[in-house]
Amino acid sequence: MSERTLDQLDTPSALIDEARMARNIRRMQARMDALAVGFRPHVKTTKCPAVARLQREAGARGITVSTLKEAQQFFADGFDDILYAVALAPHKAEQACALMRRGCRLQVVVDSVDAAQALIAADRRPDSSRRAGVLIEVDVDGHRGGVAPDSPLLIQLGRLLHDSGVSLLGVMAHAGSSYDLNNPDALQRLAELERDRAVHAAQRLRDAALPCPVVSIGSTPTALSAVRLDGVTEVRAGVYVFFDLVMAGVGVCRNDDIALSVLTTVIGHHLEQGRAIVDAGWMAMSRDRGTERQPVDQGYGLVCDEGGTVIDGLLLSGANQEHGIVTHRDSTFAVDIAARLPIGTRLRILPNHACATGAQHASYHVARGARVIAEWPRFNGW
Amino acid sequence: MSERTLDQLDTPSALIDEARMARNIRRMQARMDALAVGFRPHVKTTKCPAVARLQREAGARGITVSTLKEAQQFFADGFDDILYAVALAPHKAEQACALMRRGCRLQVVVDSVDAAQALIAADRRPDSSRRAGVLIEVDVDGHRGGVAPDSPLLIQLGRLLHDSGVSLLGVMAHAGSSYDLNNPDALQRLAELERDRAVHAAQRLRDAALPCPVVSIGSTPTALSAVRLDGVTEVRAGVYVFFDLVMAGVGVCRNDDIALSVLTTVIGHHLEQGRAIVDAGWMAMSRDRGTERQPVDQGYGLVCDEGGTVIDGLLLSGANQEHGIVTHRDSTFAVDIAARLPIGTRLRILPNHACATGAQHASYHVARGARVIAEWPRFNGW
Repeated sequence: MSERTLDQLDTPSALIDEARMARNIRRMQARMDALAVGFRPHVKTTKCPAVARLQREAGARGITVSTLKEAQQFFADGFDDILYAVALAPHKAEQACALMRRGCRLQVVVDSVDAAQALIAADRRPDSSRRAGVLIEVDVDGHRGGVAPDSPLLIQLGRLLHDSGVSLLGVMAHAGSSYDLNNPDALQRLAELERDRAVHAAQRLRDAALPCPVVSIGSTPTALSAVRLDGVTEVRAGVYVFFDLVMAGVGVCRNDDIALSVLTTVIGHHLEQGRAIVDAGWMAMSRDRGTERQPVDQGYGLVCDEGGTVIDGLLLSGANQEHGIVTHRDSTFAVDIAARLPIGTRLRILPNHACATGAQHASYHVARGARVIAEWPRFNGW
Repeated sequence: MSERTLDQLDTPSALIDEARMARNIRRMQARMDALAVGFRPHVKTTKCPAVARLQREAGARGITVSTLKEAQQFFADGFDDILYAVALAPHKAEQACALMRRGCRLQVVVDSVDAAQALIAADRRPDSSRRAGVLIEVDVDGHRGGVAPDSPLLIQLGRLLHDSGVSLLGVMAHAGSSYDLNNPDALQRLAELERDRAVHAAQRLRDAALPCPVVSIGSTPTALSAVRLDGVTEVRAGVYVFFDLVMAGVGVCRNDDIALSVLTTVIGHHLEQGRAIVDAGWMAMSRDRGTERQPVDQGYGLVCDEGGTVIDGLLLSGANQEHGIVTHRDSTFAVDIAARLPIGTRLRILPNHACATGAQHASYHVARGARVIAEWPRFNGW
């Protein structure tokens, strides 16, 4: 593809601001290095090998995925150290073990006897040249799944897996409730809770004479808020690579750190209501309204000029499938909306949730200033 | 592909209940036939030529699309009568006219002088063997774009287009605010308003000696609520083909009319909270929470057994990217959630919004009872 400029792109298009993404990658890796832990980025945010390679070049060790399709695609792209961080469905055990037999160092996660037994059964096939690697998911904040750190089930699972010849690697936890916080003290306390409970679960396994070399924790907010990670061996985080308005609301980035946006064109006005209509609706932005429960509701996104500078007060306040509605918090702007945002004007929208918005697009266009230096494919599906 | 049964599908997967979809298609076409108007289904709901062929076989004349990519893909698939029902962005005029020059009877929509001039400029290329067909969008309910039916701009646009040699076909309107209603009288009044204002705009064009053979209106709720459509030549509707929980909340279908669901597997439990965890999160369901503002909030979807029968009171109450949280409205169910929904249990989730949920999947699996008789690809993008 010959190089293009932003004004040559069709709209809507997903844009990566290259400089911001590079800064976000450096910031997280520097923090993990300072805390002396390994960093395993979650690639579900981008599903884009080109981005993951930059994370690896910056120092990441291994990747985290949310689907077996991600594991397969990234393995095909040269990534062979992969943590599949969703509790294994029993019917997927065979597919996961098949990937291991092909040489992928895939780690899977269980939090139930049923899943452990399915994994053991799949792992026992005679052509297995290696044992499956497994982590036990530990619940640290009641957010999702996982076994309680103090539960008998933790030891029961550990013993069942280890005695069956599966390679028990350790524990993993994810403090997903960190997305609901918005002050540094609370984030720091949750980061410490995530660390403490995961390390406690690991110690219980070791006290039961079970192996537990890995203690894997993390979320973007807790990774950026932790002040010590004693006993933790690796941290996972995904959305930090782009950041988004939800993360700005949580307080772990600023709006001008957000590296993902959607380029759009003004296609109409509703003069009586002081609105502009753009060609980025929910199909381009996703239906994610993650800032709705935060102190500042950003609608479907904050509106920037084509260069990426926020236009104060301008919001994507509504979205149909292919229509976005742009309004201003200040009604004096609305009076001459057609003069301020004429038809054909190009804008960028900063999204609520980078993982959800990225998933609406088949590729990212990489912007270096006004130049589009690359188009990077991404994928979806299971 | 050899025929499979539901229990052989990986999860999450998008399912079409063939019998329900066929019934929905027949119902809408019968209604349009009784009202003596043409029917032009909106294929943005499915983006699936296999579904559109069934709509055509039932009697639909032409299709409606929301993107030029849909126009191109459906034209390549043998559909040549296509209305692109989003106000034309000026930079897309050339692409639209190129499709017309390839033989597609593509109709575009404008509601501004800028878009009209871009269309005229693109249409004047010397190799144009035919004139572009254009409709003027009329605003009937302040929902989106369009010119006011009584505005001078309507006549100004009509004259500008017609005098420039573009083929002025008529007017189109969409009463999108129908999604916010939930009683038959209000729906019937809005349907009549949509009809009345569109017909009024058409009459004004004709009174100004401008051509206006087409009066195109519609949305699923108004199409199913209109009692007369005098002066209307065609109706558009999209989501009726699948229906969804929002449409059930509006009152134009029942839950057992909903033809789209997501097949999912129980992968864990959170026993203290009485929750089951399934492998359909927001990536499989979309972030659409369209029932949130309706009298009955259905969370991220209603839970059915694998056969498609609603399990009363069971909801997908929360969603992470690849995790769905299933809870019951009745706390006595929660007590033995692990016994009622053991790991490995397969469920179907009825979605809030079929257009948004379908867009999360690369294909639909077509279920006839417990058999999967086909897999139909769909597409996304622009």
